[in-house]
Amino acid sequence: MQETTRPILIIGGGPGGLEAARTAAALGHPVLLVERRGRLGGTPDAERYAKLTHHFRDAEEAIGELVAAVTDHPLIEVLTRSEVTACEGEAGDFRVTVSTPHGSREARVSAIIVATGFQHFDPGRETQLYNYYSFPDVVTLSDMEAMLKAHQVVRPSNGQPPERVAFIQCVGSRDRQIGNEFCSKVCCGIATKQAIEIKEQLPDARVFIFYIDMRMYGYWENELYWPAQERHKVNYVKGIVSEILPKGDRLLIRGEDTTMGRPMEITVDLVVLSVGMEPSSGTRQMAKLLGIAQNKYGFIEAGGPSGLDPVATSRPGIYVVGAAARPADLDDTFATAGLAAARAVATARRALVGTR
Amino acid sequence: MQETTRPILIIGGGPGGLEAARTAAALGHPVLLVERRGRLGGTPDAERYAKLTHHFRDAEEAIGELVAAVTDHPLIEVLTRSEVTACEGEAGDFRVTVSTPHGSREARVSAIIVATGFQHFDPGRETQLYNYYSFPDVVTLSDMEAMLKAHQVVRPSNGQPPERVAFIQCVGSRDRQIGNEFCSKVCCGIATKQAIEIKEQLPDARVFIFYIDMRMYGYWENELYWPAQERHKVNYVKGIVSEILPKGDRLLIRGEDTTMGRPMEITVDLVVLSVGMEPSSGTRQMAKLLGIAQNKYGFIEAGGPSGLDPVATSRPGIYVVGAAARPADLDDTFATAGLAAARAVATARRALVGTR
Repeated sequence: MQETTRPILIIGGGPGGLEAARTAAALGHPVLLVERRGRLGGTPDAERYAKLTHHFRDAEEAIGELVAAVTDHPLIEVLTRSEVTACEGEAGDFRVTVSTPHGSREARVSAIIVATGFQHFDPGRETQLYNYYSFPDVVTLSDMEAMLKAHQVVRPSNGQPPERVAFIQCVGSRDRQIGNEFCSKVCCGIATKQAIEIKEQLPDARVFIFYIDMRMYGYWENELYWPAQERHKVNYVKGIVSEILPKGDRLLIRGEDTTMGRPMEITVDLVVLSVGMEPSSGTRQMAKLLGIAQNKYGFIEAGGPSGLDPVATSRPGIYVVGAAARPADLDDTFATAGLAAARAVATARRALVGTR
Repeated sequence: MQETTRPILIIGGGPGGLEAARTAAALGHPVLLVERRGRLGGTPDAERYAKLTHHFRDAEEAIGELVAAVTDHPLIEVLTRSEVTACEGEAGDFRVTVSTPHGSREARVSAIIVATGFQHFDPGRETQLYNYYSFPDVVTLSDMEAMLKAHQVVRPSNGQPPERVAFIQCVGSRDRQIGNEFCSKVCCGIATKQAIEIKEQLPDARVFIFYIDMRMYGYWENELYWPAQERHKVNYVKGIVSEILPKGDRLLIRGEDTTMGRPMEITVDLVVLSVGMEPSSGTRQMAKLLGIAQNKYGFIEAGGPSGLDPVATSRPGIYVVGAAARPADLDDTFATAGLAAARAVATARRALVGTR
């Protein structure tokens, strides 16, 4: 029976793909994991994440454990520097072509899990008002994550630690002008986590967070938001930033303090743009190649016939995980990965029963 | 081999337990589902939910589909009006006692999934300032849900449709005084969904939502929040309500409009308290009986050794789903149910391999 079991194809080797692979393998099912980059770990690895919002665990260590569980598993075959280039067939028997460094390879797989994730909004792309590409001291959440990881939080313009840092929330999110009306869900939490880390590394720095609504849902409220305000004295300002201008060798933030209902001007050394989530190029590409529906933002449409299945795509036997379908935090990613793995293994079982 | 397979015990027949049961059975594993009430469906059924935040699907219909999938499945045995009263053993071989209407029953199960959910905060319990138990026209989200389902949105005091309705957010959440520092995550979305439904049923009513932060994360922003403001003209007011007083036969809301920075008084016919989530009595009871750790709020502690596993409890072989562990929306509940089912079946497999 084992001989006729076709593996599950998992596309993407980030947290979602890794968890899906581990879960399917724990259910006794073989997995073929395809990753475009040269190594596993996905965005947390590629963008050198510092700590996770979960108990401030070291990201490299936590993701490393997951990578080890996958690479050590006898039922999981990993292909890096590889891409799926063709797919036909149907649930239970898809025939896919994978381009690998050693040439093209054909595989028959029973089900497909798409875990191609997100990419950060490019703040220089359409909203020039924050001058990301003009001012070196305007950085993004990703840039800050790498600085925190390196314990080198500095102003890129002069290599000096900043005295005053401002986060601007909702860059590329909740913004109809650029077509991203959705909320990216995690940026409030990530900015707050980074603000705490900045205060830990530079205790004398002042940190401001300019926000529309502070979306610290669930335990982020008590685990991140309250400690940030009370223990770390992070300054939350409900306000809308309209522009960033040079002021000597510093930056002037101009906008409106919506709580006080008055114009606001504040001078800082470093601005962090809380860039939101957009579907990654891999997500867009795989959606087209696999013929699965995307929503108007380019994320993969989830829901299935009931409208309620967070991992069902428009095509039976193909499942979607985490941020390939929507703005997602790490809990969302791991949980949907588990559900997708279970659905995929069940699909494979049905196909097997069908052929006996 | 099938003969020696011990079923997975699932405690709780709400959306999380139902999805976990369906997923485990789809993986070919037998399930014993124990539910305290006389019927399946959990809180959406018990509290007569109207529509779901997901595409405004009818809750009764959507949950009914899930119930049918479970009750029709040959691998799932359902015990209603039943409770787990004892548990010993370990992962792979738990011995449990279930009290049923037909007497006590012993079972050997390989793994346990706790899907005992949440209960709504009782607004009369500690915060009397909203006068829930004194004023008939002060109701909760649950009360409103049942009125919407019955197409009978009226003032309980006189049976007349209200002209002005006010939602008050964060009742029992984000509140250190009562010990609930966490955010209940879903109330902003539920209140907004209800506001839209009220406007659909009573187009001439005015609806206000008093909030601290509008936590419309992810697609709730574009699917609920924007339509509520633009199409349905729901009035969002960032403000803190300090008291509700009688004014003739109506209600006077007093507080502070924090955006305008001034005191506010507004007269309405009906007040809806957006009560938050707390662990259900079943969750507290099962945590104690199973010997699994709870967090300081009484929810079941999730995370496991990595800190990142949303369904691992402190005891191997016992998994937790959805709102038994944290404030959770329906996506969270279904996704964690799938992950928990996969983990439980993998545990059962390992035990089986171990005994061969």
